[in-house]
Amino acid sequence: MAKDSYLVGLIGSGIGPSLSPALHQREADRQGLRYLYRLIDLDALGAAPEKVGDLVRAARDLGFDGLNITHPCKQLVLGHLDGLAPGAEALGAVNTVVFDGGRAVGHNTDVTGFAASFARGLPDAPLERVALVGAGGAGAAVAHALLTLGAGRITVVDALPERAAALAGSLNRHFGAGRADRAGPDRLPGVLAGADGVVHATPTGMAAHPGLPFPAGLLRPGLWVAEVVYRPLRTELVRAARAAGCAVLDGGGMAVFQAADAFRLFTGREPGTARMLADLPALAGAVPAPR
Amino acid sequence: MAKDSYLVGLIGSGIGPSLSPALHQREADRQGLRYLYRLIDLDALGAAPEKVGDLVRAARDLGFDGLNITHPCKQLVLGHLDGLAPGAEALGAVNTVVFDGGRAVGHNTDVTGFAASFARGLPDAPLERVALVGAGGAGAAVAHALLTLGAGRITVVDALPERAAALAGSLNRHFGAGRADRAGPDRLPGVLAGADGVVHATPTGMAAHPGLPFPAGLLRPGLWVAEVVYRPLRTELVRAARAAGCAVLDGGGMAVFQAADAFRLFTGREPGTARMLADLPALAGAVPAPR
Repeated sequence: MAKDSYLVGLIGSGIGPSLSPALHQREADRQGLRYLYRLIDLDALGAAPEKVGDLVRAARDLGFDGLNITHPCKQLVLGHLDGLAPGAEALGAVNTVVFDGGRAVGHNTDVTGFAASFARGLPDAPLERVALVGAGGAGAAVAHALLTLGAGRITVVDALPERAAALAGSLNRHFGAGRADRAGPDRLPGVLAGADGVVHATPTGMAAHPGLPFPAGLLRPGLWVAEVVYRPLRTELVRAARAAGCAVLDGGGMAVFQAADAFRLFTGREPGTARMLADLPALAGAVPAPR
Repeated sequence: MAKDSYLVGLIGSGIGPSLSPALHQREADRQGLRYLYRLIDLDALGAAPEKVGDLVRAARDLGFDGLNITHPCKQLVLGHLDGLAPGAEALGAVNTVVFDGGRAVGHNTDVTGFAASFARGLPDAPLERVALVGAGGAGAAVAHALLTLGAGRITVVDALPERAAALAGSLNRHFGAGRADRAGPDRLPGVLAGADGVVHATPTGMAAHPGLPFPAGLLRPGLWVAEVVYRPLRTELVRAARAAGCAVLDGGGMAVFQAADAFRLFTGREPGTARMLADLPALAGAVPAPR
């Protein structure tokens, strides 16, 4: 099989509007690679999320070089892999599977992608105290990235107390006691007042969930703000934070760097991340938002 | 999913040296299509031929647009399809599966490919009496093509009498009594003496099976000769027939037209068959012959 041809795909639910095919294929085209990125939508197949193992094995047998994995399969896929990269193992979630011969190895480029985006976009941001709003899968990936980058302590804020406690506990186990605690949304004013910056990792601000995740009055100059939502790129939070004089990182960087990191894993080739970042605004505007 | 991207593959045993990826992908490149042709080799997978149904279903689920099917699965696949084109149904063998929504429909472009190659290469050849040497899968496809083209009667010659009888009987059932008979190899001198032309459809002449399928002394001007073997293109039979003054059709046309017909079925686009024919000699020489 020619080394310059690559077949990859994305397994998940409701993934029709994904930007990954365009992000990957445009970069591959610039590198002169034959590269095909297929969407494998559980909803369209009428397949249960638990079928992810069968789909991964089938993809390996049919000549796929790798897969991205998204909701609701990032944890379900763990039981169907032959190996795990350390970051994916620590997080307990996989968004990228690479087929190496017969072996399926799991990685997590949400973690590396957020870290790369943060290091590029907010390189001098202080990390002693960080607030994380949202303890779901995206929040967990971001927390792992921040602690790997050297964050002193993360306060996890979520409307579901058990979910916040579970993430904080897991972070303390993996990164050392005292690296994470939790708080209810009612305590956000105090948490943000004492924080160097805040990462927002809930769906609020997406086209289907407009609005602000917390009152704009809590924003102040000197507080950096990192957004995970990238459709639209200029969420209400991004606009409010800019207006408040915050240093702001929008969600586009994480979206691009997770794709770029997956591209590197699939191909062994260095992606042109600057070109991929330049592609994003048109793509994020051109594709219908998920319903 | 973009309409201009196509994912196809070939399921079979020992298919590493197949020219199909190059034939399809080169033509797709000329048409500006994103097109990936993957080899799904049962030997490499350690999969039994009976697994072809699972592989076809998996390919459909993972976003393949279609598949080519080759030895030893052309008949086994019949039980796993949702529909059959008339030519494939008559032959009882499928070499091309097209996914149309959730439906898998079987076609046979060996038949249409030989017919197109013959009509192009030997357009004025008389077809009243035709000898067919070889009653395997290729021979059956060729016989169906010839009778569809209007051949009067085909005499099937094979070292295995049962196989020759089975093919002749099947041809008579499908195309009408008296359209086919059979003979043992010992009767070839008489059969060829009374024939307008002969099609050779055994492996003899391939790199791994060098030699002539019958004595060159049986060739004479006025007898047309069609070869199915295409690696090498200039088999010993092709050279001997040219030397004897026969009109000759080498095996390259069938190889190209079966690929072109599959390309048309997969994409709905008209292949550039002249360009594909021009690609073949370099491809047939450049790829190692099957062992």
